[in-house]
Amino acid sequence: MSGMRVQIAQAEKGVEFEFREEDLTNKSQLLLEMNPIHKKIPVLIHNGKPVCESLVAVQYVEEFWKDKSPLLPSDPYQRAQARFWADYVDKKIYDAGRRIWATKGEDQEVAKKDFTDCLKVLEGALGDKPYFGGEEFGYVDLALVPFYSWFYAYETCGNFSIEAECPKFIAWAKRCMERESVAKSLPDPHKVYGFVLELKKRVGI
Amino acid sequence: MSGMRVQIAQAEKGVEFEFREEDLTNKSQLLLEMNPIHKKIPVLIHNGKPVCESLVAVQYVEEFWKDKSPLLPSDPYQRAQARFWADYVDKKIYDAGRRIWATKGEDQEVAKKDFTDCLKVLEGALGDKPYFGGEEFGYVDLALVPFYSWFYAYETCGNFSIEAECPKFIAWAKRCMERESVAKSLPDPHKVYGFVLELKKRVGI
Repeated sequence: MSGMRVQIAQAEKGVEFEFREEDLTNKSQLLLEMNPIHKKIPVLIHNGKPVCESLVAVQYVEEFWKDKSPLLPSDPYQRAQARFWADYVDKKIYDAGRRIWATKGEDQEVAKKDFTDCLKVLEGALGDKPYFGGEEFGYVDLALVPFYSWFYAYETCGNFSIEAECPKFIAWAKRCMERESVAKSLPDPHKVYGFVLELKKRVGI
Repeated sequence: MSGMRVQIAQAEKGVEFEFREEDLTNKSQLLLEMNPIHKKIPVLIHNGKPVCESLVAVQYVEEFWKDKSPLLPSDPYQRAQARFWADYVDKKIYDAGRRIWATKGEDQEVAKKDFTDCLKVLEGALGDKPYFGGEEFGYVDLALVPFYSWFYAYETCGNFSIEAECPKFIAWAKRCMERESVAKSLPDPHKVYGFVLELKKRVGI
């Protein structure tokens, strides 16, 4: 999921990188060398040097190619707001989404409510703007939109409609999907669902 | 703990802010208005506008007063490294430290080992430099050093010596404590220990 953020950032900047899939059940020597601390993807390797953690890598791409389509606004207060919301996404959305497929019964109902509550908070932050930063697609949008490719899996596992609960959020996600940078970086939702079914089997749910 | 980061950043920049204590068992209307999302401290209020989350607030201070004693290096790769390590501190140190006072027996032994293992990873990142960024005190140092005021509590609760395990880390912490910005922002370790005893009582350990 977080690898998509870096891919979108690169596509927005118009810079090309090799993208290498990693088998996380059999981690490569390259991954272990490049991210010895967390041993996790994504690792952006630029000029032979690794940058780990997706939002750190996105900010690296932003700062290295700072003159090409900025992802963060220039005003310090607006930048802080963007970082706040990207951090909110990291702290809240992944966990609530995971609980939708990894639990059942009452716990799953709580997870569905937590998840849509988070999306409603994000709808509040979006307001009537087309993107989180305003008129232009940017940092918060690219931090958040990769989760959209998981929505089909969440809805199927949870037997509910996210669009019925959060129509403004879905309208925003569809707007993002019209961008080539996003469309080409996100996986097919049916493939994600297949992956989630594998994960469910592994944890025995 | 995270409020100290913002105080150190302000002191390093030489900018003065009002610092207001918050009773977290009885949150003020101001806190609820200024951080309606997480309802947590610290909230930096500048020109009447709130900036929430400590590392976001530190980066705001850095970017608003960008010409005064930089906290982050100018090179994009070095900036990414600093953000990676500050994120590592957030993800690892607080939790391992909390488990030292909040558990006992075997769980506490695991917590002590996890905690010192993290400090050893950080010692590796520090290397032979005086500070994490090199010759100058900066972003990673101020993200990490507030935990040092909790070490007396960790050692007393866990009945162990962090210095015996991680002497280079302690030498770095003492070096940071020689700076006025740090010394005046960190609380008395004995007061922190008293606070930890209260917390232990509350969770029944």
